[in-house]
Amino acid sequence: MNAFLPSLPRLLVEDAVKAALIEDLGRAGDITSQATIPEDANATAVFAARKVGVVAGLDFAELAMRLMDPAIRFERLVADGTRLTPGQILAKVEGPARGILSAERVALNFLGRLSGVASATARFADAIAHTKAHIVCTRKTTPGLRAFEKYAVKCGGGSNHRFGLDDAVLIKDNHIAVCGSVAEAVRRAKAFAGHLVKIEVEVDTLDQLVEAMTEKPDVVLLDNMGPEQLRQAVGIVAGRALTEASGGVTPETVVAIAEAGVDLISTGWITHSAPVLDIGLDFDVG
Amino acid sequence: MNAFLPSLPRLLVEDAVKAALIEDLGRAGDITSQATIPEDANATAVFAARKVGVVAGLDFAELAMRLMDPAIRFERLVADGTRLTPGQILAKVEGPARGILSAERVALNFLGRLSGVASATARFADAIAHTKAHIVCTRKTTPGLRAFEKYAVKCGGGSNHRFGLDDAVLIKDNHIAVCGSVAEAVRRAKAFAGHLVKIEVEVDTLDQLVEAMTEKPDVVLLDNMGPEQLRQAVGIVAGRALTEASGGVTPETVVAIAEAGVDLISTGWITHSAPVLDIGLDFDVG
Amino acid sequence: MNAFLPSLPRLLVEDAVKAALIEDLGRAGDITSQATIPEDANATAVFAARKVGVVAGLDFAELAMRLMDPAIRFERLVADGTRLTPGQILAKVEGPARGILSAERVALNFLGRLSGVASATARFADAIAHTKAHIVCTRKTTPGLRAFEKYAVKCGGGSNHRFGLDDAVLIKDNHIAVCGSVAEAVRRAKAFAGHLVKIEVEVDTLDQLVEAMTEKPDVVLLDNMGPEQLRQAVGIVAGRALTEASGGVTPETVVAIAEAGVDLISTGWITHSAPVLDIGLDFDVG
Amino acid sequence: MNAFLPSLPRLLVEDAVKAALIEDLGRAGDITSQATIPEDANATAVFAARKVGVVAGLDFAELAMRLMDPAIRFERLVADGTRLTPGQILAKVEGPARGILSAERVALNFLGRLSGVASATARFADAIAHTKAHIVCTRKTTPGLRAFEKYAVKCGGGSNHRFGLDDAVLIKDNHIAVCGSVAEAVRRAKAFAGHLVKIEVEVDTLDQLVEAMTEKPDVVLLDNMGPEQLRQAVGIVAGRALTEASGGVTPETVVAIAEAGVDLISTGWITHSAPVLDIGLDFDVG
Amino acid sequence: MNAFLPSLPRLLVEDAVKAALIEDLGRAGDITSQATIPEDANATAVFAARKVGVVAGLDFAELAMRLMDPAIRFERLVADGTRLTPGQILAKVEGPARGILSAERVALNFLGRLSGVASATARFADAIAHTKAHIVCTRKTTPGLRAFEKYAVKCGGGSNHRFGLDDAVLIKDNHIAVCGSVAEAVRRAKAFAGHLVKIEVEVDTLDQLVEAMTEKPDVVLLDNMGPEQLRQAVGIVAGRALTEASGGVTPETVVAIAEAGVDLISTGWITHSAPVLDIGLDFDVG
Amino acid sequence: MNAFLPSLPRLLVEDAVKAALIEDLGRAGDITSQATIPEDANATAVFAARKVGVVAGLDFAELAMRLMDPAIRFERLVADGTRLTPGQILAKVEGPARGILSAERVALNFLGRLSGVASATARFADAIAHTKAHIVCTRKTTPGLRAFEKYAVKCGGGSNHRFGLDDAVLIKDNHIAVCGSVAEAVRRAKAFAGHLVKIEVEVDTLDQLVEAMTEKPDVVLLDNMGPEQLRQAVGIVAGRALTEASGGVTPETVVAIAEAGVDLISTGWITHSAPVLDIGLDFDVG
Repeated sequence: MNAFLPSLPRLLVEDAVKAALIEDLGRAGDITSQATIPEDANATAVFAARKVGVVAGLDFAELAMRLMDPAIRFERLVADGTRLTPGQILAKVEGPARGILSAERVALNFLGRLSGVASATARFADAIAHTKAHIVCTRKTTPGLRAFEKYAVKCGGGSNHRFGLDDAVLIKDNHIAVCGSVAEAVRRAKAFAGHLVKIEVEVDTLDQLVEAMTEKPDVVLLDNMGPEQLRQAVGIVAGRALTEASGGVTPETVVAIAEAGVDLISTGWITHSAPVLDIGLDFDVG
Repeated sequence: MNAFLPSLPRLLVEDAVKAALIEDLGRAGDITSQATIPEDANATAVFAARKVGVVAGLDFAELAMRLMDPAIRFERLVADGTRLTPGQILAKVEGPARGILSAERVALNFLGRLSGVASATARFADAIAHTKAHIVCTRKTTPGLRAFEKYAVKCGGGSNHRFGLDDAVLIKDNHIAVCGSVAEAVRRAKAFAGHLVKIEVEVDTLDQLVEAMTEKPDVVLLDNMGPEQLRQAVGIVAGRALTEASGGVTPETVVAIAEAGVDLISTGWITHSAPVLDIGLDFDVG
Repeated sequence: MNAFLPSLPRLLVEDAVKAALIEDLGRAGDITSQATIPEDANATAVFAARKVGVVAGLDFAELAMRLMDPAIRFERLVADGTRLTPGQILAKVEGPARGILSAERVALNFLGRLSGVASATARFADAIAHTKAHIVCTRKTTPGLRAFEKYAVKCGGGSNHRFGLDDAVLIKDNHIAVCGSVAEAVRRAKAFAGHLVKIEVEVDTLDQLVEAMTEKPDVVLLDNMGPEQLRQAVGIVAGRALTEASGGVTPETVVAIAEAGVDLISTGWITHSAPVLDIGLDFDVG
Repeated sequence: MNAFLPSLPRLLVEDAVKAALIEDLGRAGDITSQATIPEDANATAVFAARKVGVVAGLDFAELAMRLMDPAIRFERLVADGTRLTPGQILAKVEGPARGILSAERVALNFLGRLSGVASATARFADAIAHTKAHIVCTRKTTPGLRAFEKYAVKCGGGSNHRFGLDDAVLIKDNHIAVCGSVAEAVRRAKAFAGHLVKIEVEVDTLDQLVEAMTEKPDVVLLDNMGPEQLRQAVGIVAGRALTEASGGVTPETVVAIAEAGVDLISTGWITHSAPVLDIGLDFDVG
Repeated sequence: MNAFLPSLPRLLVEDAVKAALIEDLGRAGDITSQATIPEDANATAVFAARKVGVVAGLDFAELAMRLMDPAIRFERLVADGTRLTPGQILAKVEGPARGILSAERVALNFLGRLSGVASATARFADAIAHTKAHIVCTRKTTPGLRAFEKYAVKCGGGSNHRFGLDDAVLIKDNHIAVCGSVAEAVRRAKAFAGHLVKIEVEVDTLDQLVEAMTEKPDVVLLDNMGPEQLRQAVGIVAGRALTEASGGVTPETVVAIAEAGVDLISTGWITHSAPVLDIGLDFDVG
Repeated sequence: MNAFLPSLPRLLVEDAVKAALIEDLGRAGDITSQATIPEDANATAVFAARKVGVVAGLDFAELAMRLMDPAIRFERLVADGTRLTPGQILAKVEGPARGILSAERVALNFLGRLSGVASATARFADAIAHTKAHIVCTRKTTPGLRAFEKYAVKCGGGSNHRFGLDDAVLIKDNHIAVCGSVAEAVRRAKAFAGHLVKIEVEVDTLDQLVEAMTEKPDVVLLDNMGPEQLRQAVGIVAGRALTEASGGVTPETVVAIAEAGVDLISTGWITHSAPVLDIGLDFDVG
């Protein structure tokens, strides 16, 4: 992995956190804390991992606290991308108790979800660490959170696929069906796309792969092929393009897929179905 | 369950779908379809379930298609809340191929996620159908999607807890710690809250429960109690408040919890960790 | 009243104040001050009450000043909810004269309106202070300002009704007409609503009230009944639900209504027709 | 008044109505109607005046209905600016009962408030119809609704003052204090402002007025002068500028002020303190 | 020109700069700087003019830097409106290298464009400095940037025309065609417009001008007239209205037009076709 | 060029056009048309080119009209990308005269600017049509309009460079200075970037180019080199990467640059300094 940790500009995070706080505050704010907590009560609390995993999203937790009340101090003890052990403290908060209690759920919702994505990614990445393959995510992300989930994938040791429909060409079976042939589809894409846009094409069979390679795509997506077929596909490509395997990728199957020699293995599971990582906020009220 | 299906005003859905489409279109739109699909090509396709589950979110799929291109026709064959069998067709789309291909992923991202929440809820609800208990969701939802996930919970046969910090009082351990006692916390909440706001209080022990009941809360949250302790708690409450169990709720434990006689069982899992329901869009390009 | 003053999270206030400032600045800003006031001129000024009333909205006035120019200092001498006498100083501002002059009108528009709502509420609340009844507001609020006006009602000693269509059930005559009977309407609502949602039903006659009570609503709305009829209604309910009177509530009628023994008296007048409280900003330019 | 009725572009109205609907729908929508009204029930209803007044805001009422559900038909029987008698029908709606009930309050909140402004304006305008003076509004408007309230003033027969700080110069006492003299203030404004920007200056005394007139302002604001002093002021100005009276304008004082010969009489009361006009929506459910 | 420099409230600038930064950051941020620049690297850099011109937009450059990273310091050496010589330093920035590099393009895009408008305006204004005429801009501005471009026109020594369709009346040929006559059009406008709204009317011929003057407009727009015809027009108006020349205004023709005696000369070129002023950001990395 | 014309999803255009209309309508709308044009007057008009050029932005013109008033019909006679001759009709509009007049300026502002970009691009593209080189745009675009200007570049026969900081790596001199060497910078970028992200590196000398090529970038940016040096650079690269020339690109120099054998020639001029294409809206009022 790169020496520089991935990072998200604060500008891209701030509006999402603010919207989530307002979603939770509703029209009247945190009426429980208004009713039971004096305005001048202070508290300290720590974010603690309950399970093994990889943390992602500390910026979101910090912003949730500080946008709720700028008087809250947030001190991080680890950085995004850190492997966590159960009980490990991620960060400390200190300040007005009302603000900390009001921001708690939003902070945890972001932190748990993004750390869940990072942790799921790490599970796959660890399994294939002995191969050259990388785990990559897809566009099967949560509406509104795509950039953040892709960031979490990087925190977990994965790599990113397209961020949207506009930043790379990915020709799928339906595009090919309309064009008439895989070669024609790649030709049209090359004629259309700018010089900084990479072109990937999905193939279902080795025959299609042979045809696709005549047009020199940057990446070939080998869809739903078994390990043996993947190995043959890698041989056909012979380094002239990157090879990506997709379909049926599970913690059980991923090793055999990786060992077939592909460069990339993509899975929607790490973004659309990863469970949250259990992280809690433990108060020391007083 | 009620004779009227839950429904969401289109006004609340539209902006979320539009934002998700723009998130996916990026700055240049669907360059693959622009490159390979003629502007006048038409297609028909069907949304089909790949697995058993409960559907939720058809409005989102329809709006994704129609906001992308008003010329796309969308016909639904089932309604939200329907139990699906593998292969079952949910809806048909027909119209400009470019538009359908461009909107496909956003439609599926919403439909898969919300149906995943509905299906997870149904799994719990089915398990305790022989008891009087209801499954309820929490505020552990995806940032930006809370109202939609709560809607999906209803589609799956569950019921809703608070929508935010403002629409009910829920006194937790930290509020109690600051107030000094559970009774004092409930008293303050009753003095503060409006007449249409219900008051729920979390207790960890039966002693706390006895104290809490002296202040007549609407609901008591019995946190992390085993079935036997829950049974005793239900006996103490004796119908003077609703009883809600939380903590350690899994498909394995939920039956014993429900059979202990509580009214409600809450779990964050159905919103924060439910895997998507596998739904695909199958094209008949021509 | 509760020992804790009501408060609004800054996050909910900020966007409204910013929008109001932009509404007033238009496209070119405060051209009068640009033309006549040197950029480095300073001023001090005080917000002063011109009439008797109750203040609400100091956060809005402070944010108007500080969002316009962070160099403006704002010091409050009273808190929201304070009873004002004519001439009483509410707050002092000090800083760049251009900024103070540019923000003046927006600060006063919020402060005058919200204090007007609080003052009107207090007038009703004072009149019935010898009874157990509380004044409550309705959804007859200014579009865009509902949460703020409801906050002002609390500052004036009133209590809040529903914040919107979603946080409580209120069955009215038209709902009943469609359902066929008041009892059926309440039954449907109970089956539909979550366990934290209270159910209120409007009745026009004592017969309807008797029928409604068979379904155990949380609150009954006694619409347009005179004091004697209200007294009978309170007797019928006999503590099994909260009783709310509405219709024809004026400073003249409210005492008799309250003395009839109802728990709540609702009036749209305090939000939709309350005149502003006259507050001025007096400059000490120099 | 002009032969063309004032009108507001739909584009300026739509977002405000949409925001108000979402403010009322909250996160779950109209749960009462969802619970009690079948999705396919239809209704007809009429908007009816309960009091004498002038209508303004029919576009808002129509948009509230149609944005809630495009299937609702809205037929207007009068136009904005019409004088209403008690019981008069303004418009009919017909369509899905749920949608009409959900949009009712927002439609009435806009219609009542804007008609209240129009009616208050008409009361003043009628009183001085025998003079050449016009009633004009101020910037003392409801935050977020300024353009709409200024439109309502025109519906009521009034005229508009500045829409914001940017579309005309209005030099007040504090600007003059900083500049050193009223003449200097007007000179600076003339040098600064564009050729399409009018310049108005506030004066408190006749001496100040004489000095101001040396710089040829477009309008002079005669603040807090009695009828006799106003008459003298009008004589001094002698048609070289428009004259505007402000301060202490009430239905009782306005006639004497107008008869003093001023061109314009401004009052914040018609926008900041006008009570709503009582308009109801009467259903014919079935 | 006025002794006070024009200025824009920060509130009006901030959202535009933030939107431009997000437009450039896209979904993943500045991946080049993330990859190659350590998070703790610092840099200093200077904004330097490459050509002769007039600067406008320093607030935008400062905000681009500071919104990207509040740790960046921005020191200005000149103010908006300053005449620049090639090589002249406008401002210095110092702070985190990543932030400066990420904000560079947005800062320069605003600064170059607005300075381009100011410089183009100055070229015209300089050419006619010996006359009483002023250069004014039009509504032919860049969508989204109108207020900023009008500000830049003032920085360059020009004056502003209407900011939009709402702040002054400008009757053009098509309005006149519908009304039937120029006199009728002005009459309708006078009856409709408020007392702070100026009325300008476009005429194509001297006959039309004579007719227009009977209705006493504030400004007459003399469209596409040559210098001799303009001189006659100025004679006809004889100081009873401001005179504005438009059509065919180029650096070559402007002097003759100004010398014809008009008060104002309007040109869309300075906003819609002015080339950017070449300004660079020179780094001293280390 | 590709057989498929470039196209922009309506969803990406709509908000920009709506914002521009609101920018122009201000708070009171088109007061001139309100005053002078009866609400029921109709008009027809045609968009006509006044000069030679290439059209881009017809969607914007159509949306400006139809968002202003859905009753306006818009019929296009040409498609974006068409070469125009003076006097050529682009589109016809027909409908309510007020709406057409109110939307005219916004329609023309978009159409003129985008057609200006397309026309400037075409001028360069035509000049080098006999070579293999393509004209590409940069990130030197109008804030808020980047995607639209890049679309216009394609209409003019050019190709697109990066849309933002996130969709490709472009290593410039300052990045290299921090990294220590060009080779190290490319290495870091390759380790960091995803598999669908292309990597371009800027070099100033042939020595730097030789070093850069050792790390196999996708594209090399040859900055400020003369034709002879470019020719040598192309020889060094020898087809192993795409070559892009930048710096000092003018209509005069572009041919020699293209004939040096580079693949791409980038210029900011076509987006930041292209004059608008003169297009008018000619009315047939009646």
